Amino acid sequence: MIQLYGTPRSGNTHKVRMALAFLDLPWDEQLTDAAARQSDAFAAITPMRQIPVYVEADRKLRDSQAILTYLAARHRPGDWDGHTPGERSEIALWLSHAANEIANGPATLRLARQFGAVIAEAQAQAVTARILPVIDAHLSDHRWLVGDRLTIADLAASPYLALAGEADIDLARWPAIGEWTDRIAALPGFPAMPGWPAQTAS
Amino acid sequence: MIQLYGTPRSGNTHKVRMALAFLDLPWDEQLTDAAARQSDAFAAITPMRQIPVYVEADRKLRDSQAILTYLAARHRPGDWDGHTPGERSEIALWLSHAANEIANGPATLRLARQFGAVIAEAQAQAVTARILPVIDAHLSDHRWLVGDRLTIADLAASPYLALAGEADIDLARWPAIGEWTDRIAALPGFPAMPGWPAQTAS
Repeated sequence: MIQLYGTPRSGNTHKVRMALAFLDLPWDEQLTDAAARQSDAFAAITPMRQIPVYVEADRKLRDSQAILTYLAARHRPGDWDGHTPGERSEIALWLSHAANEIANGPATLRLARQFGAVIAEAQAQAVTARILPVIDAHLSDHRWLVGDRLTIADLAASPYLALAGEADIDLARWPAIGEWTDRIAALPGFPAMPGWPAQTAS
Repeated sequence: MIQLYGTPRSGNTHKVRMALAFLDLPWDEQLTDAAARQSDAFAAITPMRQIPVYVEADRKLRDSQAILTYLAARHRPGDWDGHTPGERSEIALWLSHAANEIANGPATLRLARQFGAVIAEAQAQAVTARILPVIDAHLSDHRWLVGDRLTIADLAASPYLALAGEADIDLARWPAIGEWTDRIAALPGFPAMPGWPAQTAS
């Protein structure tokens, strides 16, 4: 059985949770809160002491983008990780944005607002202001980030944008982002997450 | 002819320069300094106004990790981007570290020291202190980041570590990192970069 180390409110964990749910794979969650992440036992599992961690038999994977890449290559090759060099590159672009701008912008602001983290507020605001219009512009004429289907780009980029309200970010100026996170939440099998707005009836 | 928008001292540009050189592909460089990046012409090429940008006929790619992913999938599929789901995941992990921790740690410190950028110094120091031991420990028993050969993981992660001296980072505590960047610089066709230490005779 797949073991997923994480917490219910971790957006990075939710990226993997969505993938597993959409793949219809069973998994167990290992609740790994801040105290557990400081333990020696957890350091032995992952050197960065970060969640999520994916463990399956003797396979141990860290970093949400890397876990999504594994699941795509194993279970949905091409479909979820790109059929062509061009698609693969586009997906890698959004994984970069997820790992950098989204993590250091909206996700970092949410850490401060929801969990009391001490952050570099000005930098987090600046990177947020830089990335949101780029994502919104792209989604204004694309239903999905890459191609005409869900890929791991959507799974990697969406949670901390869906959770923008918890970061005191008003997405009213960026409506295409909210429409896209609603689209993801409407997919069959989508696992609910605290703070991810319930899909509005339409 | 491939057009590469960048600067000689941009480590992100150098990731792509190394890939093109190792692939023995000809390219033209479009010198794109800070002033050029503020121009409307450049904004029309790339919404984030960042280098590098790769242009080839009607293909236009941004983000160094995404460009490496394209070049690997097109010219060295499997070899450079992973033969198995496990390798693909490991490569994605290092691309995440390149996009986030290395960019926001060593590369950001270098931006301040070399180019006068205003940075969140404490955060950049903290992320540097977190990532260097993880990379060094991995390279202490691996010649290359993934598998037993060069992959785009090495191309993405190496420049800002090779340039650590320009960020006032002393790599003496992390010798495996310097040995690995020397190993990359010793590869046939390696393009020299200002600040990347000349390979020591051995």
